[in-house]
Amino acid sequence: MGKKEYAALALGEILLRLSTPNNERIVRGDTFQKCAGGAELNVVSGIAALGLRTGIISKVPQNDLGVFVRNHIRFCGVSDDYLVYDKSKNSRLGIYYYENGAYPRKTSVVYDRAYSAINSLTVDDISEDVYSSTRLFHTSGISLALSKELRENVVEIIKKFKENGTKISFDVNFRANLWTEEEARETIETILPYVDILFASEETSRKMFKKTGDLKDVMKSYTTEYGVEIVATTERTIISPKKHHFNSIIYNAKEDCYYQEKPYENIEVVDRIGSGDAYVSGVLYGLLQYDSCEKALQFGNVVSALKNTIPGDVLSTNLNEVTRIMEEHSGQRAASELNR
Amino acid sequence: MGKKEYAALALGEILLRLSTPNNERIVRGDTFQKCAGGAELNVVSGIAALGLRTGIISKVPQNDLGVFVRNHIRFCGVSDDYLVYDKSKNSRLGIYYYENGAYPRKTSVVYDRAYSAINSLTVDDISEDVYSSTRLFHTSGISLALSKELRENVVEIIKKFKENGTKISFDVNFRANLWTEEEARETIETILPYVDILFASEETSRKMFKKTGDLKDVMKSYTTEYGVEIVATTERTIISPKKHHFNSIIYNAKEDCYYQEKPYENIEVVDRIGSGDAYVSGVLYGLLQYDSCEKALQFGNVVSALKNTIPGDVLSTNLNEVTRIMEEHSGQRAASELNR
Amino acid sequence: MGKKEYAALALGEILLRLSTPNNERIVRGDTFQKCAGGAELNVVSGIAALGLRTGIISKVPQNDLGVFVRNHIRFCGVSDDYLVYDKSKNSRLGIYYYENGAYPRKTSVVYDRAYSAINSLTVDDISEDVYSSTRLFHTSGISLALSKELRENVVEIIKKFKENGTKISFDVNFRANLWTEEEARETIETILPYVDILFASEETSRKMFKKTGDLKDVMKSYTTEYGVEIVATTERTIISPKKHHFNSIIYNAKEDCYYQEKPYENIEVVDRIGSGDAYVSGVLYGLLQYDSCEKALQFGNVVSALKNTIPGDVLSTNLNEVTRIMEEHSGQRAASELNR
Amino acid sequence: MGKKEYAALALGEILLRLSTPNNERIVRGDTFQKCAGGAELNVVSGIAALGLRTGIISKVPQNDLGVFVRNHIRFCGVSDDYLVYDKSKNSRLGIYYYENGAYPRKTSVVYDRAYSAINSLTVDDISEDVYSSTRLFHTSGISLALSKELRENVVEIIKKFKENGTKISFDVNFRANLWTEEEARETIETILPYVDILFASEETSRKMFKKTGDLKDVMKSYTTEYGVEIVATTERTIISPKKHHFNSIIYNAKEDCYYQEKPYENIEVVDRIGSGDAYVSGVLYGLLQYDSCEKALQFGNVVSALKNTIPGDVLSTNLNEVTRIMEEHSGQRAASELNR
Amino acid sequence: MGKKEYAALALGEILLRLSTPNNERIVRGDTFQKCAGGAELNVVSGIAALGLRTGIISKVPQNDLGVFVRNHIRFCGVSDDYLVYDKSKNSRLGIYYYENGAYPRKTSVVYDRAYSAINSLTVDDISEDVYSSTRLFHTSGISLALSKELRENVVEIIKKFKENGTKISFDVNFRANLWTEEEARETIETILPYVDILFASEETSRKMFKKTGDLKDVMKSYTTEYGVEIVATTERTIISPKKHHFNSIIYNAKEDCYYQEKPYENIEVVDRIGSGDAYVSGVLYGLLQYDSCEKALQFGNVVSALKNTIPGDVLSTNLNEVTRIMEEHSGQRAASELNR
Amino acid sequence: MGKKEYAALALGEILLRLSTPNNERIVRGDTFQKCAGGAELNVVSGIAALGLRTGIISKVPQNDLGVFVRNHIRFCGVSDDYLVYDKSKNSRLGIYYYENGAYPRKTSVVYDRAYSAINSLTVDDISEDVYSSTRLFHTSGISLALSKELRENVVEIIKKFKENGTKISFDVNFRANLWTEEEARETIETILPYVDILFASEETSRKMFKKTGDLKDVMKSYTTEYGVEIVATTERTIISPKKHHFNSIIYNAKEDCYYQEKPYENIEVVDRIGSGDAYVSGVLYGLLQYDSCEKALQFGNVVSALKNTIPGDVLSTNLNEVTRIMEEHSGQRAASELNR
Repeated sequence: MGKKEYAALALGEILLRLSTPNNERIVRGDTFQKCAGGAELNVVSGIAALGLRTGIISKVPQNDLGVFVRNHIRFCGVSDDYLVYDKSKNSRLGIYYYENGAYPRKTSVVYDRAYSAINSLTVDDISEDVYSSTRLFHTSGISLALSKELRENVVEIIKKFKENGTKISFDVNFRANLWTEEEARETIETILPYVDILFASEETSRKMFKKTGDLKDVMKSYTTEYGVEIVATTERTIISPKKHHFNSIIYNAKEDCYYQEKPYENIEVVDRIGSGDAYVSGVLYGLLQYDSCEKALQFGNVVSALKNTIPGDVLSTNLNEVTRIMEEHSGQRAASELNR
Repeated sequence: MGKKEYAALALGEILLRLSTPNNERIVRGDTFQKCAGGAELNVVSGIAALGLRTGIISKVPQNDLGVFVRNHIRFCGVSDDYLVYDKSKNSRLGIYYYENGAYPRKTSVVYDRAYSAINSLTVDDISEDVYSSTRLFHTSGISLALSKELRENVVEIIKKFKENGTKISFDVNFRANLWTEEEARETIETILPYVDILFASEETSRKMFKKTGDLKDVMKSYTTEYGVEIVATTERTIISPKKHHFNSIIYNAKEDCYYQEKPYENIEVVDRIGSGDAYVSGVLYGLLQYDSCEKALQFGNVVSALKNTIPGDVLSTNLNEVTRIMEEHSGQRAASELNR
Repeated sequence: MGKKEYAALALGEILLRLSTPNNERIVRGDTFQKCAGGAELNVVSGIAALGLRTGIISKVPQNDLGVFVRNHIRFCGVSDDYLVYDKSKNSRLGIYYYENGAYPRKTSVVYDRAYSAINSLTVDDISEDVYSSTRLFHTSGISLALSKELRENVVEIIKKFKENGTKISFDVNFRANLWTEEEARETIETILPYVDILFASEETSRKMFKKTGDLKDVMKSYTTEYGVEIVATTERTIISPKKHHFNSIIYNAKEDCYYQEKPYENIEVVDRIGSGDAYVSGVLYGLLQYDSCEKALQFGNVVSALKNTIPGDVLSTNLNEVTRIMEEHSGQRAASELNR
Repeated sequence: MGKKEYAALALGEILLRLSTPNNERIVRGDTFQKCAGGAELNVVSGIAALGLRTGIISKVPQNDLGVFVRNHIRFCGVSDDYLVYDKSKNSRLGIYYYENGAYPRKTSVVYDRAYSAINSLTVDDISEDVYSSTRLFHTSGISLALSKELRENVVEIIKKFKENGTKISFDVNFRANLWTEEEARETIETILPYVDILFASEETSRKMFKKTGDLKDVMKSYTTEYGVEIVATTERTIISPKKHHFNSIIYNAKEDCYYQEKPYENIEVVDRIGSGDAYVSGVLYGLLQYDSCEKALQFGNVVSALKNTIPGDVLSTNLNEVTRIMEEHSGQRAASELNR
Repeated sequence: MGKKEYAALALGEILLRLSTPNNERIVRGDTFQKCAGGAELNVVSGIAALGLRTGIISKVPQNDLGVFVRNHIRFCGVSDDYLVYDKSKNSRLGIYYYENGAYPRKTSVVYDRAYSAINSLTVDDISEDVYSSTRLFHTSGISLALSKELRENVVEIIKKFKENGTKISFDVNFRANLWTEEEARETIETILPYVDILFASEETSRKMFKKTGDLKDVMKSYTTEYGVEIVATTERTIISPKKHHFNSIIYNAKEDCYYQEKPYENIEVVDRIGSGDAYVSGVLYGLLQYDSCEKALQFGNVVSALKNTIPGDVLSTNLNEVTRIMEEHSGQRAASELNR
Repeated sequence: MGKKEYAALALGEILLRLSTPNNERIVRGDTFQKCAGGAELNVVSGIAALGLRTGIISKVPQNDLGVFVRNHIRFCGVSDDYLVYDKSKNSRLGIYYYENGAYPRKTSVVYDRAYSAINSLTVDDISEDVYSSTRLFHTSGISLALSKELRENVVEIIKKFKENGTKISFDVNFRANLWTEEEARETIETILPYVDILFASEETSRKMFKKTGDLKDVMKSYTTEYGVEIVATTERTIISPKKHHFNSIIYNAKEDCYYQEKPYENIEVVDRIGSGDAYVSGVLYGLLQYDSCEKALQFGNVVSALKNTIPGDVLSTNLNEVTRIMEEHSGQRAASELNR
């Protein structure tokens, strides 16, 4: 495998996120905070924050909202070379509305993503050179769920990356408001033979894939059944909307080895959105940069915990900060109170 | 005509409006100001601000955005009794993005209104008692332009109101991004025989309806050709995005009389959106309350001028303020600097 | 009892609330957040949020502040048909200033409510039809405390509602800065024979009414002594300004039965103001809609807990959200993390 | 006259000012901007901004609002040594609400100042040393208008300052919402014999004092009738709420001389409140620092013009900025675009 | 010792503080919150908040930033009589950038204080009368660390205050980014013979001064070795960036007595900056006002705990609030929920 | 000349800009708006907004402020490949503070740029490939003025670009607070022989370069004396801080031709900073894209006029908007009111 321009490329929808300030409700108030996000963008921007070159394949309307997204992507240090603009008259950017919870009130999300530009993305929108330009390609179940048309194109794109020797990373990311568990399982089963790195929650494995038994066996089964190399499963404990614990397990099939560390406990959650995507970005960074599941686990856990403390969808950090927290967590470094 | 519950009901789409603060651009910045608006809501909320009971017929999604709109309508003093909720899964609220101009930069609007809930509004969504509940029904060309399905329903609704002896008010409000001039003309010509009060710009009369000759003759022609009773045409002079002049002419067919007064000059424009709708509300208020074209003209001009100074789509004022400005403008009252 | 227009009407002062943002102090900073509130408005707006028709009887100045209150009431879905405007020259709206605490700093309130418009409210301000228009009338000790003039009128209004077969709900809501315990007891004792549903804290029962013994006996004594039907007492445990537990007991005299459930613990308090009023609204909703003390208890507890997480005085929620939290709390429904 | 601690002391009410942001209306929106102001505080803070030591005599409630005012006074560089705190239970700070106009909408002010703490200020609240501590004492007609009780005390205080050889400055500042022209004239005529420097508008001179003839004669008449030394009259031309011209005339009786210069034209008004008070501060600064009516005129005009461009009641500037603008205005200095 | 004008004067740098709102990152976002702070200003403003007269000796640039600092100092009730203005061309105000943490993210500070105006402060900038004007002089190790030039001047100033019989208070306040432990120890050891009241953390005593053994012995050793009268050491336990415990010990050499009380636990931290300085201000207030180490301990602990709940560098409180919390903490007063 | 990666590269300092909101003063208020800017960055970001690939050569501190600048550059679509990070301990980012004027108050700028990281930029910081990577190199007199060390390096860099056949663009941009006219002239005269495209104001030509006679002759003299190819001079008329006229002249030596068009009049100035740099970007865009001085003139004028209406340093626009305004200005297109 020669030198590739990108460490990672991802494909996925980018949404305008409109959040209420503080704990204001969507149904009231005079302002929204605006930013952009989306599961796959969150992943590649997380990897970029840690220092690797990444890009996003997506489609946005040819209007000011599309330009806002483009500017935002660049701000995150992600390449927009594969951002496609939709010139059709009614093209629109998907939106989601977000308000923060506080026990007993739930954090709440309202989607307005139907008919969005990404659904018209086709293989033909993307130049052929993309398939040989990256070491890793990532997407998630959301990209398969949005519409049948998009699903077919994404499946074809996955295959083309695979043919070019690109590692395939896939996060199941099941969303019940987009498709049924059955639709999801049928589609994803056709994808799994191409997947090298799989992110699946325990609930998904048990409910969607009907897997039973011990969690470790469940994780391992993906490697034996579909040839997946690495399987990662997160464990999030919700104490309240403002307090979580976080941990994860990674299974490496080649080594037949499970990786675990002590959890991050009592995370002070500022904005939970994107913490799962941040986990993916940390794991992929560990694999891309160190080819080590131990590093993948540590980076995955720390950046996921850290993301919960950062407003917006996107992880804003740097390698220095992440390493310091990771070392304090593992006890390699004395705890300090302030960065100064 | 017995006593009706409402002075005026209007039918039209209600949009979420997202504006950039100050002169920030849509493609940048961290916040949007949020409010609701829409040509027909603007009209009835203007009439309500002056003291008459009004309501809006519209359809919004059954989610937090729909509730935001409902709350906003109530805040404006407009009845939401005829607001219909769309429970379909992908139902959405139309949106428009707005940024303020400053010469030589134009004020700019980006629409994201395709596929919105209003398009599924049908005659069956509305209870039959509505047709006898109001003295006046108002809608605009936008409601006809949004989709073919909606157009047919709106035409039928207009006819039903007319059959019940309701005055019909119609604002042509041509929007080139929604339909062509030809489509518009064909549709509107079928409506005009039902219209009692018509709002049409000179440009629309000449370009869409191919009328020629002196403006006064152009206006009068609607009354002779279609039986319209009252025709109002505004004259807005754009000095810059922050400075306008405003005036209008009203023609009354029964009296065969044209009404005019001196223009409002050097209006300090804060937010131009909805000033045309405010004009309509002032005219309709003058007709409903005083049955006088002179009052209609004066109220139309003053509230349109005033609306330009108020942020958001909706006229926020009261009869006292409006009367004072009107009297200073007409010279009946000495000019004062401050209200205190 | 025939069909009434309103499920509930309340009488009480409405104040302008000026809050500092975040944890800023009143003595510093450049902005206040503005909203309206007041114990009785909070109650009826809470009932309205759950879906019943309610209104408020109050008096505000005939100026922009009065209009702000009117707009706010409507936004909450409460009828302003019985809002009276005070045209006297020095009429004023009562104000309170609010800043959020954080342990060891207390949440702090500064009142500026003397001489406010409500004090001039008389029986003559209210049309006679009001007394037969509602199933339930609610007020609180604050309305009795504000001034002697108002007190006499409120007592008369209570009697007139009672005569018309309206259920009377009364929240003792003792405020030491408005009157003494003795004044309060004397007045309230003359009211209690008219009260059907009584809200009294344990502290009030013991200190003001000098009741002794077990809390349950204390509660029951109101029913035996004064003929009250239902007595509700809340139990709030203040861990810190940002963390509370909440629970309550309801006693139903007819059934001679006490209702209780497990507490809401570790409530993440965003804004504590109005959570007591929200409790009243939940209880009254349960009684009005289901005629069930069990429902009253559950709705009272959940909406009180929920209110603590919502900025401002007023409960902003809907039946759907409340039911979901209630069912998760009671174990009828699996806990979820996010609403999406 | 020995060296005094203060160049100027003023007596007057200090109000909390609550303004809507941008051009938002008082009846809507979520925030108020908070500051403090009041005609006489504005005058002494203006003088302080130019470099002289000043103080304010006033009374505020003994609560957080009183402390806010104290902090604000200090921020302005004005001494709070003579600020008196009112400990009575219902003591309150006067408030005014403010919204910006834009043609044809007027700038608007709503007062809520009845029953405020200043009304309980008495001669006994002030220590005797104050009367010999300042070169100049200033107050305005507002302090006489607020209540009869206050009026009597203020008159006595004026006399005591006068007896101690202090120069007395008085701004008529007639407010029709506080008292009638007749009440005002009767009271002020008893004051005028003590006044050294008088600020009266042409309208006030003609309407309240029934003076007729040429403006210069009108001004001079105060000096011949009451022994006033200096009379200043401003001329403000309101092009629109956002554009004013400003000029003034000063008459010096000793010199029997009128001072005038060319007007400031097309002032870009950001916040008009306090520009009259700023004028007074500029004139008094010119007299106190240079004992020159020419300087007084120039300083008065420039700081009044400048105040219009500064948000809030209070002039925020420094001698350097003022001098530069003054010199450009008079042609002594070439115009520059930017300060850098 | 006769009556002095000031209870306390401090010398130290004043910085512009630029903070991100909420938990936003410095590397993103559109706004900074601006205030002023600095270890020694924080100390004297804390003492002023409790009611004693204090002042600050410092040097700021002769530009708008210098004026901002001056205004801010006055707002805090601290005298700016000894504020020196630096007129040199490149004079600058030191800055620090601040962002709030949330576990596992650290609170973070970025300094930009090199080359700031304070470094040019010399003994000659200060008038001789200062040395006899105050009962107590306070400074910290930061003032010694900023530059060699400043260090020499500060040492001389300390000596001059001491010679005039002023009590000397010194907070070691070691900052590793300004100097090394060795530099610090060498310098501070030459100062200690002049110090009456010493604030040193346990870590500093052990690491910098190489002290060993029991903490109480460590504290006492300063009194035996250098003649310090009072030594205070704080104990802060960091549960997370949003939750701290706080306690302290004070040793009084004359009495040979240690003072301690129960800790403030689970402090809800809003802004941790300045809580150490607030502790110093509370201790000094207790000593200056009551000459009591018990009061010093209680005031020190409560205002430090309280400061953590207040945004910005500076303690904003009053004696009344502090006393109430102190009494509730010590059990002298029943706990209440709200101040109203 | 083969195909280069960049259309234009510029070298210059990037500053943090801190602006007061609305017309607030630097010496007051609670917030600053933060963005980044700098004469040369403004130029290349303007060219990038119009669609060409550009980059910036600069040096920033290796801390969060440096990262903020990097993110901002990327957001503007400018390459940060040649951004150098300064790791030295006291490295700092230059800052400027900005407040908006309103007649008679001047727009005001306070600099804090001494000792900033850019001053340590050397030829060795930049990789050699840069010199052949761009069609055009731009810098301004500011880069020469900041320090002697930087000056020498910039001169060397200019020569290296020139040697590689790169077009050299230079904007004199004289800043009296950075160097004297004499220093500037001496330095710039050594540069001029390398310059192809020169931007010099009439004032600079006359005062610094002592040129006399008609403006056109003055402009031409640079081409005859130093071999400059193209000379551009802007004409800005300041009606007030909120209203400007703008025009310019371009002289092309090869064609011996002067280009002019009618001015943009009554520009509604929102933020004047960077409008000169925007002019440069428009001219360079016209030359790079069309090799036409007519286009250069038109683009220069329109984007400069447009920039005045956009907050911040940087031009935010696109080719479509610019072209539309340009065509309306030249009469090729009918004027419209709104973009929708």
